[in-house]
Parts: sequence; C-alpha cells; structure tokens
Amino acid sequence: MTVRAAVAGASGYAGGELLRLLLSHPEVEIGALTGNSNAGQPLGALQPHLLPLAGRVLRPTTADVLAGHDVVFLALPHGQSAAVAEQLGDDVLVVDMGADFRLASAADWEAFYGSPHAGTWPYGLPELPGARTALEGSRRVAVPGCYPTAVSLALFPAYAAQLAEPEAVITAATGTSGAGKALKPHLLGSEVMGSMSPYGVGGGHRHTPEMIQNLSAVAGEPVTVSFTPTLAPMARGILATCSARAKPGTTAAEVRAAYEKALADEEFVHLLPEGQWPATASVYGSNAVQIQVAYDEAAGRIIAISAIDNLTKGTAGGAVQSMNIALGFAESTGLSTIGVAP
Amino acid sequence: MTVRAAVAGASGYAGGELLRLLLSHPEVEIGALTGNSNAGQPLGALQPHLLPLAGRVLRPTTADVLAGHDVVFLALPHGQSAAVAEQLGDDVLVVDMGADFRLASAADWEAFYGSPHAGTWPYGLPELPGARTALEGSRRVAVPGCYPTAVSLALFPAYAAQLAEPEAVITAATGTSGAGKALKPHLLGSEVMGSMSPYGVGGGHRHTPEMIQNLSAVAGEPVTVSFTPTLAPMARGILATCSARAKPGTTAAEVRAAYEKALADEEFVHLLPEGQWPATASVYGSNAVQIQVAYDEAAGRIIAISAIDNLTKGTAGGAVQSMNIALGFAESTGLSTIGVAP
Amino acid sequence: MTVRAAVAGASGYAGGELLRLLLSHPEVEIGALTGNSNAGQPLGALQPHLLPLAGRVLRPTTADVLAGHDVVFLALPHGQSAAVAEQLGDDVLVVDMGADFRLASAADWEAFYGSPHAGTWPYGLPELPGARTALEGSRRVAVPGCYPTAVSLALFPAYAAQLAEPEAVITAATGTSGAGKALKPHLLGSEVMGSMSPYGVGGGHRHTPEMIQNLSAVAGEPVTVSFTPTLAPMARGILATCSARAKPGTTAAEVRAAYEKALADEEFVHLLPEGQWPATASVYGSNAVQIQVAYDEAAGRIIAISAIDNLTKGTAGGAVQSMNIALGFAESTGLSTIGVAP
Amino acid sequence: MTVRAAVAGASGYAGGELLRLLLSHPEVEIGALTGNSNAGQPLGALQPHLLPLAGRVLRPTTADVLAGHDVVFLALPHGQSAAVAEQLGDDVLVVDMGADFRLASAADWEAFYGSPHAGTWPYGLPELPGARTALEGSRRVAVPGCYPTAVSLALFPAYAAQLAEPEAVITAATGTSGAGKALKPHLLGSEVMGSMSPYGVGGGHRHTPEMIQNLSAVAGEPVTVSFTPTLAPMARGILATCSARAKPGTTAAEVRAAYEKALADEEFVHLLPEGQWPATASVYGSNAVQIQVAYDEAAGRIIAISAIDNLTKGTAGGAVQSMNIALGFAESTGLSTIGVAP
Repeated sequence: MTVRAAVAGASGYAGGELLRLLLSHPEVEIGALTGNSNAGQPLGALQPHLLPLAGRVLRPTTADVLAGHDVVFLALPHGQSAAVAEQLGDDVLVVDMGADFRLASAADWEAFYGSPHAGTWPYGLPELPGARTALEGSRRVAVPGCYPTAVSLALFPAYAAQLAEPEAVITAATGTSGAGKALKPHLLGSEVMGSMSPYGVGGGHRHTPEMIQNLSAVAGEPVTVSFTPTLAPMARGILATCSARAKPGTTAAEVRAAYEKALADEEFVHLLPEGQWPATASVYGSNAVQIQVAYDEAAGRIIAISAIDNLTKGTAGGAVQSMNIALGFAESTGLSTIGVAP
Repeated sequence: MTVRAAVAGASGYAGGELLRLLLSHPEVEIGALTGNSNAGQPLGALQPHLLPLAGRVLRPTTADVLAGHDVVFLALPHGQSAAVAEQLGDDVLVVDMGADFRLASAADWEAFYGSPHAGTWPYGLPELPGARTALEGSRRVAVPGCYPTAVSLALFPAYAAQLAEPEAVITAATGTSGAGKALKPHLLGSEVMGSMSPYGVGGGHRHTPEMIQNLSAVAGEPVTVSFTPTLAPMARGILATCSARAKPGTTAAEVRAAYEKALADEEFVHLLPEGQWPATASVYGSNAVQIQVAYDEAAGRIIAISAIDNLTKGTAGGAVQSMNIALGFAESTGLSTIGVAP
Repeated sequence: MTVRAAVAGASGYAGGELLRLLLSHPEVEIGALTGNSNAGQPLGALQPHLLPLAGRVLRPTTADVLAGHDVVFLALPHGQSAAVAEQLGDDVLVVDMGADFRLASAADWEAFYGSPHAGTWPYGLPELPGARTALEGSRRVAVPGCYPTAVSLALFPAYAAQLAEPEAVITAATGTSGAGKALKPHLLGSEVMGSMSPYGVGGGHRHTPEMIQNLSAVAGEPVTVSFTPTLAPMARGILATCSARAKPGTTAAEVRAAYEKALADEEFVHLLPEGQWPATASVYGSNAVQIQVAYDEAAGRIIAISAIDNLTKGTAGGAVQSMNIALGFAESTGLSTIGVAP
Repeated sequence: MTVRAAVAGASGYAGGELLRLLLSHPEVEIGALTGNSNAGQPLGALQPHLLPLAGRVLRPTTADVLAGHDVVFLALPHGQSAAVAEQLGDDVLVVDMGADFRLASAADWEAFYGSPHAGTWPYGLPELPGARTALEGSRRVAVPGCYPTAVSLALFPAYAAQLAEPEAVITAATGTSGAGKALKPHLLGSEVMGSMSPYGVGGGHRHTPEMIQNLSAVAGEPVTVSFTPTLAPMARGILATCSARAKPGTTAAEVRAAYEKALADEEFVHLLPEGQWPATASVYGSNAVQIQVAYDEAAGRIIAISAIDNLTKGTAGGAVQSMNIALGFAESTGLSTIGVAP
C-alpha cells in the first residue's frame, strides 16, 4: 500500500529534512509541497540538496492544495496548525511538526506560547511508556520538540525505575538548524562559527513544560526541570546532558540495569557500551539516538547523556516513525540508524 | 542475486563510508571486515556511526580472510593492493580504492609514487567517454582519486567539445577527511577549524598525473594541469574550480550547449540551472555531483566548477557505482543523489 | 600628538574591527561612533566583544556628528562616502573603507557599480610600488578591497620583475565576515558550516577591475584577471591562490629572488621559508600577510599564494596602516603581526 | 623595570598563547624558549602565527637553560614542574601553568593524578576572595585549570553571598585547544567538526577537586560538584553553565545584587546587562570573562554562565595577570579585554 503525502512548509529545514526522508520511503508518494512566502518558486532553488525534487514548484498553504492526500505533514510556525487541520478530514493522517498539540495543559500552553490552546494529540515519541499504543491507528500526531526528544529519552529510564529525585538539571547544545532558517543576526555564520552561547536561560524556553510533562508522567510525581539550551557551532545535532540526584541507596549497577531494561527493545535508541560516550556526529542524518549513563557517587547524581540529530529523530525522522506506526507500516520503514560520519 | 563483499581497511574513512553505503545496498551482503593495527577490535569502537555493524570484529588483512567473497574492496595505503589482488581469483571482483592501478604510464607512477608500477585496471569513472563500457563485466576496477573525480567531471565536457586550450588551471578545496585518519598535527581540529591552507603546491600532488591522463584522453592532445589543493575547515566535500582559456571564437552558448550535451544522460552529474552555483553541502553524503560553467569573455576563459562529497562520489560511492556496472546491477543501486543538508 | 577619530558605520564588521584596533592605538582617541538603522543603541549590544566601548551609544551618520574630528573613517555601503566626505574639511583625514574612490577608471566604476564615479583617492596599499609616497601627508585615502589586497600582494612581485605573462588566474576563499552582517539566507550558519561554494563567477565580482588596475600598473602592460571567489566555512581570513604562465626562460631561482627582493623591506608582508605554506589561522586578527610562491615547471606557471585576515589587513588594519602613513606616525603603530592561533 | 622571562614548553598551545601575550607586554623581554621533542627546531615551524619569534630556536628543557631569568613559565605535562622548580632560585618567579601545585589536599591530588603530591603554591585566580593578596610578592604561582577558572568565577558570588545550596551542577563546553596538541584520533578535525561529545563524565575529570576546593572555600562549607565537560567544534573558548539550588527565600533581586557586588571592581570579569548572554566569541583571544546569572523560580535554581577563552584567561592570560600581581606591575599590563570577533 502506498500513501500520498503533502508537506506544508516545504521550504524550511524541517520540511526539507522530511522530504529527504520521504524520498527514500518505499510506501510514500510525495504529493503537494507548499510554502507561503516562497510559493511559486521551484524547490531546487530553495532546497538544492533534494535533486529529485528540483523541478517541483511550491504552492500556497491552503486546504484546497492539501486536500486529497492520505497524509499531511505540517511544518508551520506555532499557532497555524489547528486552522489547517480542521479543514482536513478525520480520515486524513495529520502529522503536526509544530508545537500546537503537544501540551496537555492549556495553562502551560498559554503561559509559554501566549495564544489559545489548540488541543492535545497523541504524542509522537513512541519510546515513552504507552506512547506507541496511542499512536497506532491514530489520524492525528503531535511530533515532539527536538530538545524534549533528546531529554526525555535520556532521563525516562531513571524515572521509570524510580531511581532519580524529581529535580532534573539539563544543559543541551544544539546545532543552528534548530533555530530554523530565520534571518536573525545571531544566526549568521560569522556569529556562530567558533562560538558557544546560551539562550532562553532561567526557565523560559518553550520546550520546558513539554519536558516536565513527559518526565512527570513517567515518574508518577511532579518533576521540576532546570533547562539551559546553548547554541553550538555546527549545523545539526543535539547533545543533552541531563542529571538528577539519585534516590538514597541507589547503586551504579541499578542505574545501568534500569537503562538496559528500558531501552532493550528500541531499535532507534542505542545504549552505548560502558566507557563509550555519545557524539552528535555519530547520528548525523540518522534516526538513531545514542545514550550513555553514569552514576557519580561523590556528587550523588545520575548523569544521562543523549545525542540525536535535531532534524531527523528530533523532528522529521520522529514524524516519519510516528506515521509508520499510525498507518501500520513497520516502524523503521524509510528510516536509518546509520549516521553520516565523519 | 546477492553478492558477498569483503572490505579491507574497514577502520578508515574510506572503508567506513563504503560500509555506510553497502548497508543500504539491496544486492550486497557484508562479509569479512579487515584492518591491520585495529584487528581484533569491534567496529563499534572505531566507526560508532555504523550502528548495525557495531558488534563486528575486525580481522587481519590476509588473503585467507578475504577469500570466498564475490567482491573484495581494497581501502589500503598505496602499494599494498597488488599483493592482495594477486591472491584473489580472476572471478572475484576486486575494487581498488587506492591509487595503484589508476595510471597507464609506469613512468608517471614511479615519478609520483616512487615504487614499481603495479599495472592498470579499468578506470571507475563511468561518466568519462568509453569508461562505462570498459567496466561492464570487468573483475578489476581502479577507483579514481577524489580530486581527479571532481576535476575530470568539471572539465571533460569542454575538452570533449574542443572548446578549451590544453592548459588547465585548477584550485580545489577539500574537507579534512580527504587526508584520512592519519595522526598529523596539521589535521588536528584546533589547526583546521577557522583556517584555509594549501599543500602540494607547484605540481607535486599525486593526483596531478591522473588528471592529465583523463583530460588528455578526452581532448585528444596533451593537456597540462596546474593543480593547487587546499584544506578547508569542513569534514567532507570537494569544491573544484577549474579553468582553461577558450579556443578562439568560442561563445558562451557553445560552452553551455557542450555541458548540456555531455551531462544530459548522467543520473549522478547535475548541471545546475544558469545562475545557480555548486555547494558542497548540497551533495553531502550523496553520490551526486553539482556542476556549473561560465564563460568569462573579458578573460577569455571557461570556468567550470564542481562539488562532490570526497568520501561518497569521490571514493566509496564511485566504488559502488563501478561495482554495480561490473556486476550488471542498475548503476544507481544503493546510491543516492540526495544530500544531507543543511 | 593624539588625534581624535570618528567612525561612521560602527555597527558592522569592518567598523567593529577598526574600533578593536583603534582601542590599542596609542595616538588615537575614539570620538563619535555612528550607525543608521542602529542609531541610539549602545555598542555593547551590537559589538559585545568591544568591552571598553560597551556603554557608547551610536549616533546617526551626519556631517554634524562627524565634524570636529582629525580623522573620519567611513565604513558605509558603496555610493554613500562622497556625500559625507564633501562636507568634511580638506584638513580632515578621511579614510574610506568602501569602494567609492578606489578605481581610476570611471568606465570601470560605472560598469561594475552602476552609479556615477565619485573620483579617485590615494590608494591605501602602501606595499605597492609608489603607493606609500602618495599616502604621505594625504588627507584622503581609499582603502583597498579585501580580495585585491590579498591578490595584489601575492602577484605584484612577479609582475614587477617581468616574469609573468599578463593573464592572471585567481581563486580565493574568504571567511563569511567578508560578506558583512547582511541578513541573507546563504550567510546563515546552518548554510555555511561544512560547505564551500563559489559566487560571482565569470568575471562579475566588483573587485576584479581593482585587481586589473593594480597588476597592470605594476606590469606596465594590461593584465587580464580571471577571478573566482569562494565562501569558506570560517568567520575570517582570505586564502588567495594566484597563478600566471611564466615568461619564456624563467627559472625557479629567479621567481624566488624576485619575491625576496620585492618583499624584503615590508614589515607586514612575510615571504615564508621554502616548504612552508600560508594558513589563514596564522594571521587571524593580525595585519600580517603570509606569502609563498612556487614555480611549476611542468605546467609552466608561477603560483603565488597569500593569506590575510580579511577584516584586519584586508580592511581595518589596512586603513590604520594608511592613516599612520598619512599622519606621519610609524607605519606599524597600533598594528600587530602576531596572529591569534590556534 | 623590565624582566626577562623563559618559557618551558613553548611549542604547545599554552606556551604559544603565553608568547603571544608576552610579545605585547611592555615590561617583559622574552628569553629562553624550550621544548623537548621539538628542541632544535625554529619556532616559526611550530608556531607560525608568532612572526616576531619565527627565527628563535627551541632549546631542551633543562635548569641550565632556564637559569638566569627573572621569571620562568612552566607549560609542562603534570608531574614535571616540581623537579624543574626546585633547581630555580627562590628569587626567581616560577609560574606553573600545569596542575602540580593547585591542590591543597595531597589525597585529592593522588586520587586524581596518581602521583605524589608536589605541594601547594599561591593560586593564580586573583578574583577569588583572598587570592590577590596571596599573590602579591610571591615567587611561586599555580595557574588554575581552564575549567576551574570559568566555573569558580561563575559561581563564587552566589556562594560568597550564601545564596546557593552546596551542590553545584556544571556542564561546560570547551574548544579543542583545551585538549592540547596531542595526536589523538578524537581530536582530528574530521572528528570534531560538526560534533559535540562529552568526556570524563561521572566525576572523573581532574579539574573537579579544584572546583570543589575553590567553591567550598568561598561557601565556608563542603560543596559537591557534578561536572560534565564536553568538546565543542571550535578551537578556543569555554562556556560554563553552572547551577545550584537557591537557599530558601532567595529572590532574583538578591542574586543579581550579589553578582553586582562581587564583580564590581574586577576589570576582567564583566557581568553582562540583564537580557544579554555570554558568548565565547566575544572573549576570543582576550583575558575578559563574560558572566550572566538567572534565577529560575519554578526550578528553584540559580543558573550562572561564564564565557572565557580557555587559552587566555583560562591559561596564559591568567598566568600573565598573576605575574603582574606578583611583580607589582599594574594587573592588566599586557592584557586586553577586547575579543577578536566576529
């Protein structure tokens, strides 16, 4: 069975990565591609790396254009997905790569995004307890944020095993594509090359409530999250350094065992052998997640570190993985665990 | 039909890239992997991006280990391939990713490599006139150098159409993976990041006679080549800026037409629309080649520029493409024209 | 004697680099700083690396604001300098870091810049024959372009010694700061990191007539220039690879001797020992120029390569060097030949 | 008064940066330069960016060679400084840029370095309470580690004001020069460009006890430190993200006030205006430190972030600053707070 997929927001980084993956997906035929400011332009001028689609012309993002597809991927600025989704039938699989349907709490949504809450859709991080089942057969999917993907996968085994205190401290470094194609001075190559800098420090980053939602659900108690994102001089990748104080009596062996147990059956999430550490280069362009965990006895903390490609597993790869589950394809169809390195 | 392939030199950059490609090749089963200094180590410790092969252990590079495969890829230091190849049957396809069998002239070989000439095998750049036919059914293939691949594809259309004087001037920038995994001070990250520098200036680079051989054959007259390689602060990619004085009476339209004609039927070599220029990022991790050409009337020169991934089309992708031809698979089997960008 | 200097265009990369140098210049007191879109903002928000000036507020670029200084540096978009300069007295030293007064030929100016020619000022590349004398005591200085600086210094010794044919072929790689702080998609970090790409190919780059002017003057005959600029994944630096066919009978020894003679007395231009090659990292943040030359006998060409920091010797350092000469300070006052490396 | 300085270990990154600074120090004359494996080579071949010293030849690191100088800087592998220092008179200022004399606790030294403890010298981080006085007139100085410099400056104001609980959680990203010029595969440009990766996770990094020593002294109680270092794709710079739970009742205003008070009189440490965040590019090549602090009320944590140049303030600049204090020069002599950016 082949499905026809439309991509709204095909000129951005998320849309481009999605098309890169869909081009090698054996069950997907690429349908309408839309953009707004770029409507009318050939994709070859905007995404020159997608050679097989170079001649495709972007159309405006309207319900008419998106109608008549089996799957519609939305890579739109937050706040715009609901209006489009409403006009698509309930039988159409709508995969929202934006933030609109990720949060269950309307209060959190309004506090961090400042607009009315659109609702909550099944959450596209199948590795979290219960998430995979909720995605099966669903016709609506909310793709997680890139940071929450990296952070939730790194910490959920510790919380699921009740080994960690409910106060997570996280620092993550992202490649600049995480900030999108926006024309902002601090994203110019001259500014980012050779520089590391933080942003959204002190609890203000919009991905924070999403992390709290995921970790609290797994822990069965409210987890606080101190999250500091930093911008790194690379185009792709997230390295998330996550830690929490270990509950009294925890041993290093228990920590290792908890991670082995939680990740044993996941084909995309790889717990590295002891002594080996994640590197974003190793998962470049792939849907793989590298994880390693340590127990610092002197500090009494569990340190879990994950590496993902923010555009692949962190966005477009996660979207394809969830589509596969929703439509009943093998979960890894069209996805790879092989990084492009060096 | 599935073939079993062995890879000698699996711990290096060329070997790693080859394995990345073979893992997605539907007709290839990966057999023995060998290294010398690394024999006995798991591949996961040496090539952490190749997750599906993480548990594979490297074996020593011996004829016994390499025997019993349909295809043997050699990614060895120059001078070592002949001894190995001799011990493999004539029915085994041997693909040499090193330099040993590229040059027809023993004198050139000895002048540039300082060792006895091993011989000449069919040349694995199918896009050159006559090359594809010579590869069909062959059981020996000499994979071109990365620079000669980029340069020959950029200039052969001008020489094939007799539009260029036989004096080529070439400057190429390569990513550091082109220098391999050698532990040399000038290849340290601290040295290369933020720096451009030349090397092998003045005619000494070993790829120079290979370029001369290819361009002279197409031109039907001896072509001199002034080649300056430079090291760029990136891991992958070659951007080759190639020029030659135009023969009297040449027009811009003739130049464009010559390139359109020469490249029309090539699925991996893409002549960009006028006004668009190659970028190495656009072919990152792919077997695609981006080419653009301009005619500078004031200077009377044709300038042809190509972008490739030095590890893919420049080495491992070219090897797979030639294997496909030699074994009668569709030429693009297991290869992609889609770059990983941004 | 201390002079008071105003800087018009203090929020850009050229203006920022100029201020970095003036802050360590013992004879200069920094006066008015102007910007247009940024007027009213503190410099600390725009140039956070210039800590001693963090509290300075940008003022609008008007004659009133610039009046009353001994020196006025103009770092403005081309076409804007003449109007400002006219309103400043003949006793004020005006150093134009833009292109407006570089070209002697009004026809060239109009062909490449498409606006009326503003005139010609003494050219701020003191190392060129005759240039230093013209700068002494002058109250108007045209700072050269960054590419013409790198290229003219690399090739003038060969032309001054009549060793090179009048057809120069040049490829140069520049750091992204050479393109300024303009908010253009191709200058985003995500686009430039890991990528090399050309632009302005085929003779269209505006620095081409400036190179022709400089080299022809030294050669005593018209020199054609084929110039291809490329964008490299680094913030600063230009590596210029320049070549020309050697005149009949030229020997390697003559070439070396010509460069030693031409550069012997220059404190900023350093001819490297044979066997050592320039690297942009070695001149990072300094006013030094590294040069090496080779004679490729097989190709019959002289290859001269230079490395500069495009913002320092290529722009702001060259401006300070010329100011020093014009005002009678020691030429190297406030300038360094020490790069920031690694 | 001018002093004569010798540098042991002049071929490495720390030694090179020290020479870069000493070359512009008005009170220092550069004497003997030593290396071991590199003895006999000209500095120009090893540190091509130090043009004024290109002709200097490295000598072996012996007491004879180092004798007869007023100041001797030691940039040697740990464990080697004591033997050299013993042979230098008590009237000679010995500045150890290695780790040997940083730790007061012999037990910590032996646990982390596995060799006998050499002793404890006055600690070269003048901004810490009491440190400046201890350095005045001293003839022995232990230069801090690069990470402890960044971390101690970011957190000491919070501990000095008794606002933070004694459990610090720190993630820091360093440029690759922090790992020195060692020829290790993971430091190759091809490996580090485009990649972020952690190392020494779980409490094993040798700089951890130094951080504990500094923070505990300021806090007046034992502080635990969970420290995770990461390698970033840049040559220079450290961005340290440091946090601790705030003591009950702490307010954002108190936190800000504590930092303003603690850093008010420091010429190198700059607390940024609220809303602006540190960037390593802003302190590139300078002795400046950028600091910003936030109070995350929801998570109940103080987050303090610092940016330094690991080779300047983190090593060689810190060494010069301490030398200035020890010898009675103005503390900022020969040092700059101006970064080289972009």
